[in-house]
Amino acid sequence: MSAPFKKLALIGIGLIGSSIALAARRQGLADVIAISTRKAETLDEARELGLGDIYTLDAADAVRGADLVILCTPVGAYESVMRAIAPALEKGAILSDVGSVKGHVVKVLAPLVPEGVHLIPGHPIAGTEHSGPSAGFAELFAGRWCVLTPGAEVDPAQTERLAGFWRAMGSQVETMDAAHHDMVLAITSHIPHLVAYNIVGTVADLEAATQSEVIKFSASGFRDFTRIAASDPVMWRDVFLTNRDAVLEMLGRFSEDLSVLQRAVRTGDGPALETMFTRTRAIRRSIISAGQETAAPDFGRPHEATPAPVSPVILREHGGGDDA
Amino acid sequence: MSAPFKKLALIGIGLIGSSIALAARRQGLADVIAISTRKAETLDEARELGLGDIYTLDAADAVRGADLVILCTPVGAYESVMRAIAPALEKGAILSDVGSVKGHVVKVLAPLVPEGVHLIPGHPIAGTEHSGPSAGFAELFAGRWCVLTPGAEVDPAQTERLAGFWRAMGSQVETMDAAHHDMVLAITSHIPHLVAYNIVGTVADLEAATQSEVIKFSASGFRDFTRIAASDPVMWRDVFLTNRDAVLEMLGRFSEDLSVLQRAVRTGDGPALETMFTRTRAIRRSIISAGQETAAPDFGRPHEATPAPVSPVILREHGGGDDA
Repeated sequence: MSAPFKKLALIGIGLIGSSIALAARRQGLADVIAISTRKAETLDEARELGLGDIYTLDAADAVRGADLVILCTPVGAYESVMRAIAPALEKGAILSDVGSVKGHVVKVLAPLVPEGVHLIPGHPIAGTEHSGPSAGFAELFAGRWCVLTPGAEVDPAQTERLAGFWRAMGSQVETMDAAHHDMVLAITSHIPHLVAYNIVGTVADLEAATQSEVIKFSASGFRDFTRIAASDPVMWRDVFLTNRDAVLEMLGRFSEDLSVLQRAVRTGDGPALETMFTRTRAIRRSIISAGQETAAPDFGRPHEATPAPVSPVILREHGGGDDA
Repeated sequence: MSAPFKKLALIGIGLIGSSIALAARRQGLADVIAISTRKAETLDEARELGLGDIYTLDAADAVRGADLVILCTPVGAYESVMRAIAPALEKGAILSDVGSVKGHVVKVLAPLVPEGVHLIPGHPIAGTEHSGPSAGFAELFAGRWCVLTPGAEVDPAQTERLAGFWRAMGSQVETMDAAHHDMVLAITSHIPHLVAYNIVGTVADLEAATQSEVIKFSASGFRDFTRIAASDPVMWRDVFLTNRDAVLEMLGRFSEDLSVLQRAVRTGDGPALETMFTRTRAIRRSIISAGQETAAPDFGRPHEATPAPVSPVILREHGGGDDA
């Protein structure tokens, strides 16, 4: 029995591309997986990891004969990739991507898509702070949402075919308008990343002595921000270059709200602070009950074991307190 | 052989107080553990959990005969607690606390401390987003820092005695000036919490339909912020009321930096964004190598398994693609 797709072409093989390769292989979703990257060393790494069947530096080669092509490069590279692959795309193929912005992607790709190729942009809402081909794992998409933003001209049967591909990898699929996607993601993803990068940057500007203490005491909240701010810089640069309007709109709201909080701190308005800090708990509960997060404290982060009980005699040696 | 302390009194029994109770018991650090809370129901909960030996609503009762007293209530309650316990404090006892701000604590407590009692404020840099007596666990302090901020008048032998108590629970101990502590914690802890509360608040103000999508797509970054913003509201209200100057200073720096980033987004300055997003990675690496964080992706958050491979026939039913 043959797989749902005869040839899957992945252009770019970072965290998302490699995770698709592993999940598609495990679920038997393509007879052949072709991988193309711009850099030879990344391609070598993918080959060593055994992520695909065909490895090539020529993206046109990879897409030739493919019935599913997924762009997994940073969004900033889409236009040049598209110019390279357009002549080689097969009639009837689905062309999709995994970029974090969708309006811009449509604007760049749509004019270059050959007739008969189905452009269905996609965005799997999944990831970790790690990047590169070795960061991928087959379970990345399990229980996570994948948003598809097909244009009005796309045959629903093709959208459903791509949705089936994502469901088979464990995702829940939702289709929506590209502009709406970009506004929702601006607040759930782009602003959190911008703020995390910003606060880690503020720390990077502190004098060296204080900075080493910040690292020491990072468990007090800061380290969560550094995880987000460790995400791929080129990918994130492209997100902010290509979702500018939605980001600036949401950043405006964020800054207004922060000014209100800042004033409450300055004026010592305890009731306002407590009200603000209480109402945010409900949203956390909703996220956990929606299955998008673990309820375990600290995300289930491992905690070390305590040391073996210390002899009281040793403890007392330090002290000489009143009860000695 | 008797324990290092004959009687440990814990005033307040939330996440930190209950973790101290469990760790001190496991490590044999006190002959008797007395627990006092303001609310009867919290005290009942502590009793049911078997956290101590003596349970009382009268804080003065709890501290009578104690050689180590640790205030574990929100900082805003310190003054009234202190007025209640001062007459009952034993000469030679160590009086400490676990509050997240230290300058204010000294200002409030110092004038009320009876002669012969050693005031040594403390701050264990440890916690989770859960609160209440049932949230505690004995390993909470393992591998984490505990900062002590003794005044110049304190006998170093007493500080060392308290340090030994924290080390026995697994902490590394550092002593520093209260004002310096408050500035470092403002940026590592207080600003991250303020920003997290703020962004979750911005979402809480979105119209209901968008909000449910935010929850759906929270895995894209937002859910990390909701964890931080799920911390105890009263505790955090008190932090911002009592560390105002350091918070406003660091918030000023944060806002300046955010304006620079915002301008880079508005003007489409790709190189500036990429530089900013790259330099923050080094700080994450330092935190991991300092043992304050796990290197596992997503903090080692659990990932679901992918579903069993779907029959290609079923997949094709959705589709009817060109290769069918």
